[in-house]
Amino acid sequence: MTMCGTENPTSNNKTSCVSPANGNGMTLPSFPSDHVLNLEQGDPTVFESYWRKMGDKCTMVISGSELMSYISDFTSVCWFLEPALEAAVRRFHRTVGNAVVDGDRHIVVGTGSTQLYQAALYALTSPGRSEPVSVVSAAPYYSSYPDETDYLCSALYKWTGDAYAFNKTRHGPYIEVVNTPNNPDGTLREAVVKNRSDQGKLIHDLAYYWPQYTPITRPADHDIMYFTFSKSTGHAGSRIGWAIVKDREVARKMSKFVELSSLGVSKDSQQRAAKIMGVICDGYENCKSTDNSELFFDHCHQIMGNRWERLRKVVEQSEVFSLPNYPKKYCIFFGDSVEPYPAFAWMEAEEDVDTEKVLRGQIKVQGRTGRRFGVDQRYVRISMLSREDVFNHFLERLSTITSVTNGH
Amino acid sequence: MTMCGTENPTSNNKTSCVSPANGNGMTLPSFPSDHVLNLEQGDPTVFESYWRKMGDKCTMVISGSELMSYISDFTSVCWFLEPALEAAVRRFHRTVGNAVVDGDRHIVVGTGSTQLYQAALYALTSPGRSEPVSVVSAAPYYSSYPDETDYLCSALYKWTGDAYAFNKTRHGPYIEVVNTPNNPDGTLREAVVKNRSDQGKLIHDLAYYWPQYTPITRPADHDIMYFTFSKSTGHAGSRIGWAIVKDREVARKMSKFVELSSLGVSKDSQQRAAKIMGVICDGYENCKSTDNSELFFDHCHQIMGNRWERLRKVVEQSEVFSLPNYPKKYCIFFGDSVEPYPAFAWMEAEEDVDTEKVLRGQIKVQGRTGRRFGVDQRYVRISMLSREDVFNHFLERLSTITSVTNGH
Repeated sequence: MTMCGTENPTSNNKTSCVSPANGNGMTLPSFPSDHVLNLEQGDPTVFESYWRKMGDKCTMVISGSELMSYISDFTSVCWFLEPALEAAVRRFHRTVGNAVVDGDRHIVVGTGSTQLYQAALYALTSPGRSEPVSVVSAAPYYSSYPDETDYLCSALYKWTGDAYAFNKTRHGPYIEVVNTPNNPDGTLREAVVKNRSDQGKLIHDLAYYWPQYTPITRPADHDIMYFTFSKSTGHAGSRIGWAIVKDREVARKMSKFVELSSLGVSKDSQQRAAKIMGVICDGYENCKSTDNSELFFDHCHQIMGNRWERLRKVVEQSEVFSLPNYPKKYCIFFGDSVEPYPAFAWMEAEEDVDTEKVLRGQIKVQGRTGRRFGVDQRYVRISMLSREDVFNHFLERLSTITSVTNGH
Repeated sequence: MTMCGTENPTSNNKTSCVSPANGNGMTLPSFPSDHVLNLEQGDPTVFESYWRKMGDKCTMVISGSELMSYISDFTSVCWFLEPALEAAVRRFHRTVGNAVVDGDRHIVVGTGSTQLYQAALYALTSPGRSEPVSVVSAAPYYSSYPDETDYLCSALYKWTGDAYAFNKTRHGPYIEVVNTPNNPDGTLREAVVKNRSDQGKLIHDLAYYWPQYTPITRPADHDIMYFTFSKSTGHAGSRIGWAIVKDREVARKMSKFVELSSLGVSKDSQQRAAKIMGVICDGYENCKSTDNSELFFDHCHQIMGNRWERLRKVVEQSEVFSLPNYPKKYCIFFGDSVEPYPAFAWMEAEEDVDTEKVLRGQIKVQGRTGRRFGVDQRYVRISMLSREDVFNHFLERLSTITSVTNGH
């Protein structure tokens, strides 16, 4: 059996990947029914078609002698942050209205938000405590938090699991990660640990707080919040994330982490991110003369809406799964009341089964089990961000399921 | 006072950097004498002039829709390694002859060699030991090893310092990092901990094992060895390193580390590195028709030789410092007996003074003290890789020193 779409980077079972996974813009062959459709990761290849349509507008050209130095700007708290990216990030957020970047806000660039999550843990802790600081997030939580927190067995911090459980027992100093909209379930989140004191600190993971996924209700304004190029524009391969940080000393420590971890962040990708963000912003600034469907967030919101509509139809007809319902909210970006279209479908089986296994067994679709997110195996997370043909095959196969106990 | 050249990323004293630090290829203004020349880091901007001369040959063009996925090749042990980079790395080493890449050798890409050093520590240790594994390197050792080992207070491994001291006392399981040619002192190194058993493992840091710095005496063939784009071609801003690993399971664990640390490595920079390596290899493959001074390693070897010759002359005349002498060796790449021209000058004062302070105080030159490398303050490390004008000013200022106790 071969695996189509993308395969699980965190698992060890390597299988070959057929040509549909190559994003070369060619017409893709149809998938044989025994090919596994991989919808386990949130690989954002759905947005490739938009960028292909943009043609040369975003083409990045770097000569052999450019961007060679380690250093970008020594006057900055984050000395390896390209000034062009810093300016583009601030402009991007001003255009979208999803984060406060004016006033005393520091930008720290990271090799994806993965590195920034760890930079934030490092910045909020100090050596010399008798116990590591607890790191918690409300279940269902992003499945990579536990491993990314614990893989080096740090004495600084330690994954402690569901923030709701922590709230009840109170274990001393902690960091709560608030992921909103939440991966995997798309809900809007606030901190859940109550009676927070000096003992508790917050990190806001806003990877999905972009108009294609969720109504932008206000500019986020938290102490430490981070975003990523992967989920905002779909450029996961560039590994660019950025944090917006209020406290200068926290920003300095986060930068120090990135320095110790990788001596900075690819300047090639920083410049590419700056260029692409700029093209999106240019589009909205000139939007009177532009067909709205050519504007990035408008276009992608339509794609996501279309996928969600089709998915809901199939799920309703099958009567064996359910999906969360998300209330419409007023979006300050679109200037209208809009429905959330999360990056993942958080599917629950109506019966008590291992839904990941059911999908893999019955229709050769690879999702990620709820257990990885700290909840029940009845849940499975399915990526909504695959290429169109993979998504279409997924719906086609899903529509054939009439019972979750069939064939088991 | 302002700082010219580059400033220390690891220190907190931020000072402004005047225009000579911008690598824009313009004629640079001369430096006022109160401007600090920063020769503390090994920022390899010396090679910019070569790449400018190459014009468009290495220009990288990336359209907006390319390289968007997280994934490069799921059939590879290192799923985020671009196949083009893997092929380029193998070809590069075959061209230079400095490392064995054929047979069963796995390539793991990292965000610079900084990340690969940590990936190797992770791969060679396991949770659940009562004590962290000791990490040692013979003094003078690279000044970043201690911090990069200890910043997360890992229970897996712990910096234990000078490998010579470890050898005498024997503390149980250890990892020895062999940096050859060695940063800071340019010496050729072998492991120094004796009676190695199953208790001891080796990591070879070969960042400087390239023909412009040292005679290539044989293809290196160690269990884990890593190289970096920064020091091989001078492209530090791209943050690309690669490890060559014999054992598949070690390569898999190193890849897992990079996955957990940053979910892969910039594809933009991987492709750029592949392109630039390819241009160098093309040059040598077609070298009968090419003027040798246009070939990368030949050209850069000449530049380094010229700098070292001029530096030695100034140091000899001053009579207050000394430099190591490096024996000529037969270089299989140049097919001739050649002198090493290390990336750093490891200067020792003839009297017992803090040489870093002397240089900073008397001539406004920032080096890095021997103390940071685990040895005496009489030593200072000076980068030989700055832009030409900075190096020229350095020599001019150095020639004015007649006594290390003057002015103190």
